[in-house]
Amino acid sequence: MVKMRYVFAINFKSYETAYNNVALDIARTANQLTSKYNNVRIILAVPSVMVSKLNSIYDDIFLQHLDPLEFGAYTGYLSADSLKYLEVKGTLVNHSEHKIIYRDIEKIVKKIKDVGKESLVCADTSGEAAGIAYLDPTMIAVEPPELIGSGIPVSRAKPEIITDSVSAVKKIKNIPVLAGAGITMPDDAVKAIELGSSGVLIASAVMKAKDPNKVIINFVEAINGI
Amino acid sequence: MVKMRYVFAINFKSYETAYNNVALDIARTANQLTSKYNNVRIILAVPSVMVSKLNSIYDDIFLQHLDPLEFGAYTGYLSADSLKYLEVKGTLVNHSEHKIIYRDIEKIVKKIKDVGKESLVCADTSGEAAGIAYLDPTMIAVEPPELIGSGIPVSRAKPEIITDSVSAVKKIKNIPVLAGAGITMPDDAVKAIELGSSGVLIASAVMKAKDPNKVIINFVEAINGI
Amino acid sequence: MVKMRYVFAINFKSYETAYNNVALDIARTANQLTSKYNNVRIILAVPSVMVSKLNSIYDDIFLQHLDPLEFGAYTGYLSADSLKYLEVKGTLVNHSEHKIIYRDIEKIVKKIKDVGKESLVCADTSGEAAGIAYLDPTMIAVEPPELIGSGIPVSRAKPEIITDSVSAVKKIKNIPVLAGAGITMPDDAVKAIELGSSGVLIASAVMKAKDPNKVIINFVEAINGI
Amino acid sequence: MVKMRYVFAINFKSYETAYNNVALDIARTANQLTSKYNNVRIILAVPSVMVSKLNSIYDDIFLQHLDPLEFGAYTGYLSADSLKYLEVKGTLVNHSEHKIIYRDIEKIVKKIKDVGKESLVCADTSGEAAGIAYLDPTMIAVEPPELIGSGIPVSRAKPEIITDSVSAVKKIKNIPVLAGAGITMPDDAVKAIELGSSGVLIASAVMKAKDPNKVIINFVEAINGI
Repeated sequence: MVKMRYVFAINFKSYETAYNNVALDIARTANQLTSKYNNVRIILAVPSVMVSKLNSIYDDIFLQHLDPLEFGAYTGYLSADSLKYLEVKGTLVNHSEHKIIYRDIEKIVKKIKDVGKESLVCADTSGEAAGIAYLDPTMIAVEPPELIGSGIPVSRAKPEIITDSVSAVKKIKNIPVLAGAGITMPDDAVKAIELGSSGVLIASAVMKAKDPNKVIINFVEAINGI
Repeated sequence: MVKMRYVFAINFKSYETAYNNVALDIARTANQLTSKYNNVRIILAVPSVMVSKLNSIYDDIFLQHLDPLEFGAYTGYLSADSLKYLEVKGTLVNHSEHKIIYRDIEKIVKKIKDVGKESLVCADTSGEAAGIAYLDPTMIAVEPPELIGSGIPVSRAKPEIITDSVSAVKKIKNIPVLAGAGITMPDDAVKAIELGSSGVLIASAVMKAKDPNKVIINFVEAINGI
Repeated sequence: MVKMRYVFAINFKSYETAYNNVALDIARTANQLTSKYNNVRIILAVPSVMVSKLNSIYDDIFLQHLDPLEFGAYTGYLSADSLKYLEVKGTLVNHSEHKIIYRDIEKIVKKIKDVGKESLVCADTSGEAAGIAYLDPTMIAVEPPELIGSGIPVSRAKPEIITDSVSAVKKIKNIPVLAGAGITMPDDAVKAIELGSSGVLIASAVMKAKDPNKVIINFVEAINGI
Repeated sequence: MVKMRYVFAINFKSYETAYNNVALDIARTANQLTSKYNNVRIILAVPSVMVSKLNSIYDDIFLQHLDPLEFGAYTGYLSADSLKYLEVKGTLVNHSEHKIIYRDIEKIVKKIKDVGKESLVCADTSGEAAGIAYLDPTMIAVEPPELIGSGIPVSRAKPEIITDSVSAVKKIKNIPVLAGAGITMPDDAVKAIELGSSGVLIASAVMKAKDPNKVIINFVEAINGI
């Protein structure tokens, strides 16, 4: 029997560490761990300006946002259609810190699918996740906004958000659901997976850590051991 | 006497050519022309995802937009503070297709200055340009929005916008003023400079051309000859 | 057995007729028809500046939008909390021409409920409607944006949007679903109700009509006769 | 010689008092004071839903915001063109809590002028005020955002913002400049006028006061005595 491969997605956000040498180190660590641990998929969601540099080190790179636009006279936007030229596997969509209207989620998810890449669409609640499931993205991540960056892990404080979201989504379509917000310790991630999620989305616990690489190793080992 | 060095700024926008091989070709052409023609400064304003790739070919690269943000928990935004780590000389600000409020222009221009990079702030009118001059950016570009992409050059259709803007800006501070919108032929650029501008900002005439490199060469030769 | 009372909601939008004497005439007509036809509920969704004037004529008035805000230092916004002081029965939320993020729909619907008023939340598709059903609004209106103002009635061109939406919503909660977009003739409304909707949301067919009152009478008579 | 008539503008914002009986009381007080004190013009900038009710008591009513739109299919917006039908003397534009891009300020100011009403356009700084002066609004109000609601009066903490703004604006056009932010005591207003402004824009000092009417009387008496 093939063991499930869990997702460990690191959102670099716009922390200083997303742009400097720490970002490169994280990519190197991700690259080493990926060849060592077969049960964990490490995704790095990075600032657009960092894609080329990080992709030369590690190849499971996501964008953090795309604009719902075709190619054309748009200055300072990242047209969703450009995805076909970019060295990324996919993109975050509708993150809690970059919410967009449903119509735009629909447009972006469709364009991503058209070029054979992956969408990881975020939701605040099981209700939002259910609406998104109708759009058939590659993955859905549920993160209660009040817990993001709080250090209070969703899998401890609001386990029902994970179970409800998994249940609401699966009723519509069998889409993997990740959990996020406040996840600080490897055990929080393990707990989130035990609640039915397919992995976690994490940010400050890595990006603001004294030793981000150590944090990543600990998480990946714990998740791999599930 | 040192001859004035005029600016020829190409805004890649989000045209398909901004992301594919054409973009690389343009950077190569810019690199060759820069060593050949001393009186023209060629600036390429490119999508954020293309900065690293293009900077390895040509080094006078600008971003098209920055967000008025510090480092931090911002997903899918480009914090202005990141500029210090990026291989760009500067950034467009407040382009006609990405207008921002005055307060944010102020914040971004200040952050750009703090890290010793350049700001090229756009304005629709001489009035907007005058307000921007108080923020002391590196350059100001005036582009009447109704002419952008029209093929009707501002220097022919609305020469008074150029002369008024130069005059309004210089009353406040001696900041170079570029002209843009509808510039299609090298003569339009020459005319814009004769009207008092310090160069031009161009987009579709290059990015949608059958032979973008030929267009660039023609413009640079004409401007260099002024 | 009590016969179902169908909804005939007129969105005044920001047409000139929303602000002048036509608006007052429509309110008078609505008032007369309401006492005459028992099976139709006429809702007028009007510009905020018109609420007081129209409410003095007819009492089933809705706002077109509310901002997801408490009372406070917000200039030029309509705090959702103000609803308790306003002479309206409820408000449109998330209309196709004023889309908001899911999180804000949630906040507004909750505030509306807290003061015992009604929410009519719009959706583009059955998927968006399903997500909204989790928020338990008073009513949901489904309108494919490409048909709004087109004169091509949703009930003819895309009947499956109505049946799918009704079905998706009812699975979650028994909330009345209205249909809208392109509805021009009374028969289009009848057809929408026969497809399972609880009424229609209409705009240009009334507000841009030569004789809006005649149009309203025809619709109300047709719907009342179902 | 005709004595100057100073402006005392009260921005109701979206405080609870903007929607309940306090709002009506303030309008009554304004009405009484206006007939008693000839040197002060009292402007009430009120929520759009309150215009009709307050205008039946007092006739110098402003809106707090207008959308840069024509009549048409816009739901939940207040088209600038509607101004011709509304019982207001004018509107605030670009308030610190509702900033808009320069292009939209231009469009709104033009539409206001076309129907013979008044615009009171806000600015954060003297630079922003100068840019706005080119649009020739009826009045400009300068308010440093960091002092709004702070209780630290601009006329004490940053008197140079008032003098610089008056000077920057007058160089372009002779437009009255109001001052605002943190003004709490009648003396702060007097001081702002002595610095060259034509009056003040005030909000929390009235709307959050225990006795708003007493506050208004004190201010109007002090200003009238200048």
